[in-house]
Amino acid sequence: MLLTALALTIGQLAADPAPAVRNNLMPEPAELKFMAGRFAVTPEFSVVVRGHDDARLREAIARALRRCEERTGLTFGANEEIASSKPALIIECQGPGQAIPSLAENESYSLEITSTQVTLRAATVVGAIRGLETLLQLLGADADGYFFPVAVIHDQPRFPWRGLLIDVCRHWQPIEVIKRNLDGMALVKLNVLHLHLSEDQGFRIESKKFPELQKKGSDGNYFTQEQMRDIIAYAAARGIRVVPEFDVPGHATSWVVSHPELASLPGKYSIERRWGVFDPVLDPTNEKTYELLDGFLGEMCALFPDTYIHIGGDENNGKQWTASPAIQEFIQDHNLKDNAGLHTYFNSRVHEILKRHGKSMIGWDEILHPDLPHDSVIQSWRGADGLADAVQRGFKTILSHGYYIDLMYSTAQHYTNDPLPAANGLSAAEQKLILGGEATMWSEWVSPENIDSRIWPRTAAIAERLWSPRDVNDVSDMCRRLDIVSARLEEAGLLHEKNRDPMLRRLAGDNATEAERLALRVFVDAVEPVKEYTRGGYQKDATQFTPLTGLVDCARPDSRAAREFAGQVEKFIFAEGKPDAKQLETIARQLQIWIAAGDCVATQLSLRSPQLRAVAPAAKALADASRVASEALKSLDTGTTPAADWQIKQFALLNDAAHPRAAVELPIIPAIKLLVSAAAEQNQRAQFSTEEWRRHLEKQISKLSEDVKLKE
Amino acid sequence: MLLTALALTIGQLAADPAPAVRNNLMPEPAELKFMAGRFAVTPEFSVVVRGHDDARLREAIARALRRCEERTGLTFGANEEIASSKPALIIECQGPGQAIPSLAENESYSLEITSTQVTLRAATVVGAIRGLETLLQLLGADADGYFFPVAVIHDQPRFPWRGLLIDVCRHWQPIEVIKRNLDGMALVKLNVLHLHLSEDQGFRIESKKFPELQKKGSDGNYFTQEQMRDIIAYAAARGIRVVPEFDVPGHATSWVVSHPELASLPGKYSIERRWGVFDPVLDPTNEKTYELLDGFLGEMCALFPDTYIHIGGDENNGKQWTASPAIQEFIQDHNLKDNAGLHTYFNSRVHEILKRHGKSMIGWDEILHPDLPHDSVIQSWRGADGLADAVQRGFKTILSHGYYIDLMYSTAQHYTNDPLPAANGLSAAEQKLILGGEATMWSEWVSPENIDSRIWPRTAAIAERLWSPRDVNDVSDMCRRLDIVSARLEEAGLLHEKNRDPMLRRLAGDNATEAERLALRVFVDAVEPVKEYTRGGYQKDATQFTPLTGLVDCARPDSRAAREFAGQVEKFIFAEGKPDAKQLETIARQLQIWIAAGDCVATQLSLRSPQLRAVAPAAKALADASRVASEALKSLDTGTTPAADWQIKQFALLNDAAHPRAAVELPIIPAIKLLVSAAAEQNQRAQFSTEEWRRHLEKQISKLSEDVKLKE
Repeated sequence: MLLTALALTIGQLAADPAPAVRNNLMPEPAELKFMAGRFAVTPEFSVVVRGHDDARLREAIARALRRCEERTGLTFGANEEIASSKPALIIECQGPGQAIPSLAENESYSLEITSTQVTLRAATVVGAIRGLETLLQLLGADADGYFFPVAVIHDQPRFPWRGLLIDVCRHWQPIEVIKRNLDGMALVKLNVLHLHLSEDQGFRIESKKFPELQKKGSDGNYFTQEQMRDIIAYAAARGIRVVPEFDVPGHATSWVVSHPELASLPGKYSIERRWGVFDPVLDPTNEKTYELLDGFLGEMCALFPDTYIHIGGDENNGKQWTASPAIQEFIQDHNLKDNAGLHTYFNSRVHEILKRHGKSMIGWDEILHPDLPHDSVIQSWRGADGLADAVQRGFKTILSHGYYIDLMYSTAQHYTNDPLPAANGLSAAEQKLILGGEATMWSEWVSPENIDSRIWPRTAAIAERLWSPRDVNDVSDMCRRLDIVSARLEEAGLLHEKNRDPMLRRLAGDNATEAERLALRVFVDAVEPVKEYTRGGYQKDATQFTPLTGLVDCARPDSRAAREFAGQVEKFIFAEGKPDAKQLETIARQLQIWIAAGDCVATQLSLRSPQLRAVAPAAKALADASRVASEALKSLDTGTTPAADWQIKQFALLNDAAHPRAAVELPIIPAIKLLVSAAAEQNQRAQFSTEEWRRHLEKQISKLSEDVKLKE
Repeated sequence: MLLTALALTIGQLAADPAPAVRNNLMPEPAELKFMAGRFAVTPEFSVVVRGHDDARLREAIARALRRCEERTGLTFGANEEIASSKPALIIECQGPGQAIPSLAENESYSLEITSTQVTLRAATVVGAIRGLETLLQLLGADADGYFFPVAVIHDQPRFPWRGLLIDVCRHWQPIEVIKRNLDGMALVKLNVLHLHLSEDQGFRIESKKFPELQKKGSDGNYFTQEQMRDIIAYAAARGIRVVPEFDVPGHATSWVVSHPELASLPGKYSIERRWGVFDPVLDPTNEKTYELLDGFLGEMCALFPDTYIHIGGDENNGKQWTASPAIQEFIQDHNLKDNAGLHTYFNSRVHEILKRHGKSMIGWDEILHPDLPHDSVIQSWRGADGLADAVQRGFKTILSHGYYIDLMYSTAQHYTNDPLPAANGLSAAEQKLILGGEATMWSEWVSPENIDSRIWPRTAAIAERLWSPRDVNDVSDMCRRLDIVSARLEEAGLLHEKNRDPMLRRLAGDNATEAERLALRVFVDAVEPVKEYTRGGYQKDATQFTPLTGLVDCARPDSRAAREFAGQVEKFIFAEGKPDAKQLETIARQLQIWIAAGDCVATQLSLRSPQLRAVAPAAKALADASRVASEALKSLDTGTTPAADWQIKQFALLNDAAHPRAAVELPIIPAIKLLVSAAAEQNQRAQFSTEEWRRHLEKQISKLSEDVKLKE
């Protein structure tokens, strides 16, 4: 069967016309102009360095050439001495910039591509590295070979702090995960790797002064200082800063496993294995706490070259403080008012320590307090208000609210989340305090096997938001370019696409037929993991040891199949003039696939794979919802308005199908509701303009969706 | 189109009956008996260690449980204290065995599985590790859940030396490649990792005494001693020895880059970038050579705990020795007769050095010489004769001839290559000298990206040849089990399957449609890289820097599609009674797929992807040959014998299609020739018995294949 299918598929294919030169870049440059013509990439291609030259630049060039070779299959010659007549990339760097990049690094560059020469100009080596990434993204191919389009680019970032946080504590992420993600970050011009290194569930950095911290707090899974130096060098070679976070005074269970005397209540502590906010908190009234922090942070300040050290400071629930008479007495004695005051006291002590070691402090929202020293940076995770509040009080801030990629939101939602929207009500000085943002990859529900699929490609869109001008904000064009940059990320070594099929093979098991595996893939591509903080509700007993190899772990956020389906339905329903028969056929086919795949998984594969038994209801929901859509489509095709109660019945079914099952949900439901209402109301279509028709259907959908919800 | 195809595929599928318990093990155990019943694997499953207990065993258990959790999605509890009533795996180890395994390690174990308990007994921890791998391979699943079948196994290896050589010199293979392959080796019970560490193209191990060796000889790509200790520990934890090879006196260019004074002719040497046999050879007449070797090998003997150090000794072309009057004079003065005598003199000096450092020597065929010390081991790469010759002279040997996995032979060829066939003409004492064998992954044409696809799954069949009894030799059953063990290898982290699609996506480029990518995949799965040493002929200018990202690098040896096609054709042609209509349909469909895919790649995709332009003739050959086969099939289906000259014409085309193009070849040609001859001669079918019919067609095919070859 599979073979017939393939034959049909391939046989019926007609070649599309070759695409014209398009802007496939992500992030989009500040200024970009394509012109007629091409610079042919041939084996004669070589690189000439003029002006500043150093090892970091040479290594960046070698990496870029290698990636170009791997894509083209060409071998570029040793390029030290070339005849001036040959096609070449000329790199003119004004100076080295900072060996270890800082917030102030100049990352600007320009690219001038003519038919015979490419000139890359930059003030610093990091600027040149950014320009090389742009050039690699410009590499095109057609019947005449590989080429760079003739173009002029002037580019620099909108924000200087463009980060990705990786939580290596809740689920350990070894060095290879970090390195391949640094490659991905460089590709989309992110420049800060924020490593969340201590947490209730693990202490992930080697201290030589206090080795008991990682020995008792990590199950042996931590970065040695040598590995960390390796990571920092790897990052610096790509123009990326490494900002470490040691979360205090809360989220501190793994600290007090080896140092129970520093907890705010006495007790025997062990590494936390569950998820949530826990009570253990360092004792700010104990001078030994500051002795340990001074020793430890001193060591870390020497290890990490960046100016900023992140001290966390979030989600201190204060329970231990409230329960301790000694601590409450301390608050009174020191006029600290309450637990919040004590927290600020603690922060100021930590700030002092960091200052002594030559560093600045960064922390989450909660550290914001009138007495907080003004060189501190606030990382806003709780909302845009926090960000505005911080800058209005004169603090530098970065935005993470809206960039929580662990919460499984769509790329579009992250993309349209601007740290500094046009109508922001801030003064020019305040605006300057907004340094940028960070995507946050919290790791309750990710393993080294699937973490890339949560980070990429969505983080590329966040990278564009932080690099490109504010008015680069066309969601549909972003989605087009996202597919392309996703392929580049895969070539750079990321596993976001690559690991799906192996994970599904394992999940389906040895008894699955090839067709059943195909059905499972179609099914998993049509669903998304549940969003926000709801997953724990589906796996109440989950711990750090729970295997992350189930359907929800294979499913990926922002289903491309669902996104494309919604686009097609939208076009079909709101087409001006006669509905497009081809569009209808495409939609009908997709629905047939989902029906077949859903039924296959629900009734066949679930019998062969015990792991998949629990997902049968989700697969059935996909098939059932698709059947409803098929019926609606048929009604629209034949122009036959269904019976009066049909719409309500279908909505009942769809509202039910919209409920997540097995921790996955069906993002296609809204588009199906649109089809159903359009079918049910079609005899009224003629009364409305297209815009009115849209509003009418939206109202209808909203009404029926709510009605059903209220009845439950 | 793709969607329709998928719908058809999934929709038409009917569930197969659940398979009965089958032997899916690879390698097969020495004794295996399945009985009725099952041990259900549930979250209550736990492990109890009785008798000897140590950290290595505990870590092996933890790894095994984790893999079991990842396959089942179950979380097994902390298992220290369990109620005796719960279902458990009891491990009874008699003793630790050797912390660093040696050739003498006892690897035997037994497994007794009842419906309530699994008992694993072993003399050593390594035996227990082997037994755990068997148990993991026994894990089954059906509608009732996960289970181990009730069974009794008594198992031990046939040969004590079961190795895999990885050449990390010609193309550098970093530590992650080594580690994941060690996991694969452990899975199929291989026990020797032979690391080829010095070669003309690279010196890949850190010497602290002579750091210039790796500094000048490796482009910075070498194992640090710390990494090597990590590899050795990783291997030992899996019961695997690490045998290092330092190839001398030939294959020595990378040595003399930093030590030109030790070459046999004066000169300035640089790392060799091309492939072949090169002249630079160490000077055996220079005492400084032995000083360096003594210092370096002394350091290595301390680093590597294994008894054996491999000194290479192969392919010394003697040119430099012949060209040096001083060396020729030395030969005369020392009565060494000729270059071969000098080589033996050199070997005896190296042997002396190794002996002084407490090690035994192993080398390739060429070191065999009457004067070679008898504790040396010969690794036979040139043929079975060499093996017999060595043991008859009283040397221990291991076989690599026939296990050269870099030469792209079929799994069946490697599998049927027995180091000690039944009719071997050797005495019992001589037979004992045959220690086992080693698969050899020479790395001229592999990168870290595709090396796994050359090693796996074929090496699993070699592992079975070396572990299982001689009479475990059913090729078709091996092929069935190979597919299953291949999935296990993927789960263990190997990239042999996983990297194909990403490599094809990069090759096809961004302009390719989804259907074109599918066509490319069908095409690449139908071809094989050229065999033996012919690839260099297709890429004459290739060096160490040539990107290995072309079609041939994506293609894999031993095409499964071709193998299955050949099996179907065979069954169809030689069916007793009426040919099977379903079989015919399956073959016809496969041919339609190949025609569609070949045409698509040749005429469409090759226009969009400059890299694929060169492969268009190979794709066309696939389509053309499949068209010939289709015609033959139609003739057989309708019972219409074709015109008299038809067969000769088709053979001309097929003989041409059999020529490799773009360094890939079509393994389906022999099966197509069978179809063509069967069609052409079908009016004679009734005269023959099935066996005679087979011989008749074989003769016919042989005649026509030769005829055409002679005419060329």
